[in-house]
Amino acid sequence: MNNAAFPHPFDRAIALEPQGCANADGSLTYRGHTSPAYANMVGPFGGIIAAQALQSVMLHPQLLGEPVAFTGNFAAAMRDGEFIVQATPARTNRSTQHWTITIRQADDQGDRATVFTATVLTARRRDTWGAVDVAVPEAPTPQNSAAVPASRELPEWFKRYEMRWVRGIIPDRWDGAESDSTSTLWARDELGRPLDFPALLAMCDVFYPRVWLRRAKRVPAGTVSMTVYFHVNAAGLADSGTGHVLCDARGQGFFGGFFDQAATLWSEQRRLLASSHQVVYYRE
Amino acid sequence: MNNAAFPHPFDRAIALEPQGCANADGSLTYRGHTSPAYANMVGPFGGIIAAQALQSVMLHPQLLGEPVAFTGNFAAAMRDGEFIVQATPARTNRSTQHWTITIRQADDQGDRATVFTATVLTARRRDTWGAVDVAVPEAPTPQNSAAVPASRELPEWFKRYEMRWVRGIIPDRWDGAESDSTSTLWARDELGRPLDFPALLAMCDVFYPRVWLRRAKRVPAGTVSMTVYFHVNAAGLADSGTGHVLCDARGQGFFGGFFDQAATLWSEQRRLLASSHQVVYYRE
Repeated sequence: MNNAAFPHPFDRAIALEPQGCANADGSLTYRGHTSPAYANMVGPFGGIIAAQALQSVMLHPQLLGEPVAFTGNFAAAMRDGEFIVQATPARTNRSTQHWTITIRQADDQGDRATVFTATVLTARRRDTWGAVDVAVPEAPTPQNSAAVPASRELPEWFKRYEMRWVRGIIPDRWDGAESDSTSTLWARDELGRPLDFPALLAMCDVFYPRVWLRRAKRVPAGTVSMTVYFHVNAAGLADSGTGHVLCDARGQGFFGGFFDQAATLWSEQRRLLASSHQVVYYRE
Repeated sequence: MNNAAFPHPFDRAIALEPQGCANADGSLTYRGHTSPAYANMVGPFGGIIAAQALQSVMLHPQLLGEPVAFTGNFAAAMRDGEFIVQATPARTNRSTQHWTITIRQADDQGDRATVFTATVLTARRRDTWGAVDVAVPEAPTPQNSAAVPASRELPEWFKRYEMRWVRGIIPDRWDGAESDSTSTLWARDELGRPLDFPALLAMCDVFYPRVWLRRAKRVPAGTVSMTVYFHVNAAGLADSGTGHVLCDARGQGFFGGFFDQAATLWSEQRRLLASSHQVVYYRE
């Protein structure tokens, strides 16, 4: 599936077309298009928007090193159709580089309005001492974990992932019984696409709103800002190959219409791949 | 101390002078100056730079609501002296607003170069259901916690805080004995300054590098990117008043020259004020 003639749905979704060459400040503009394959209930899956933004850095001719940190802000609902991404290397040092990214789309008046902002840190990694001090979530193998019941009504992007649930699947009874907000699942891109930085970034947003699980109540909710720290380089990602990724998330503080979520992502070999945090809007 | 004639050192440090009126896109430029009172070993304390950036939003005439999320990127070392902050409301919705911030300073050639970038989410808070699902760190009262031994050589900004340590004080023996990376301390601004958003933001960076504690080894290290989620509104901050803030941080993944830190900040009444994450560069 994954070749030039038949690109993977993820590669089609994050495809960007550079609009000419970089400006004097290094900024480069790309044209992209939302993908029906990654549609959410309204607009696109947030993870795919984040991946599109990161891809504008990955494709940039002045890129230094590999992604270390990413923060993306979902400033407004994205419409189905074309969008413009601008990636600017705001500061380039010897071994680190700081990027700012903006995604714009035509609004009702035809003016280009900002729908997404992001900052990215890339760096040349060094060989250093290392350690992992966060606990690996307990989980059986993907094969011994539960598939999503086929009867569920799911947004389109959900079908782009092979998901196996360990705990905290979407409630089937919205009875308001409060419980722990932790979800643990195995996920991988459908059709055997090898893991890379944009795909790992998108997977950090694979969780449905923690507030639904915590309250067993389906209130309006949506991610507003998302931060991801990568704990792996390209060689480490290659080790993961097309294996499943163990994704674990829980809510922290729920207050005044916003809650935060802490997540970790691990390879099948239980290597820490990424830690992620997001703040999510909710009603009621 | 805290009045117009004798402003608090923190208020002097975050003072910004608007340069004219907002541009057509809403962006507003301010002039600021580094503060010797918040000097670190090299350049300013990162927390004060973050607070200066947030202050450019707090002072902006188009500000909607209160801070909910902040991500700041320390793109380059800041020099002692003047700097220029630009705050732009990238998107204003009915109840949320997305900001981008850049701090620039003259470089060796006299050109203005970017030294800091940030994005901020502000919002009108709603009354909603709420909960706190992260554990309160165990700690005695501030009065029963340990002051920093006076013999220690400390950077200037450290003296701007009354600190009382519960666990994980800076090692006095750099013997390479690996241990847990958790630090818990009570902190408050000296001279009884009531807590506000910029002060709480700065406190999220009050921790010395986790890698020093984890390895009992003092390697070169510095924060590169920092994200803070606020779990309190102005009324909640007012409840904290001039009380101590319980600050707790631990390292998560250490890999290839960068580690991440997860932190929570609590009022004396054990109300969750903020959760914070940062990625920190380290050598060796």
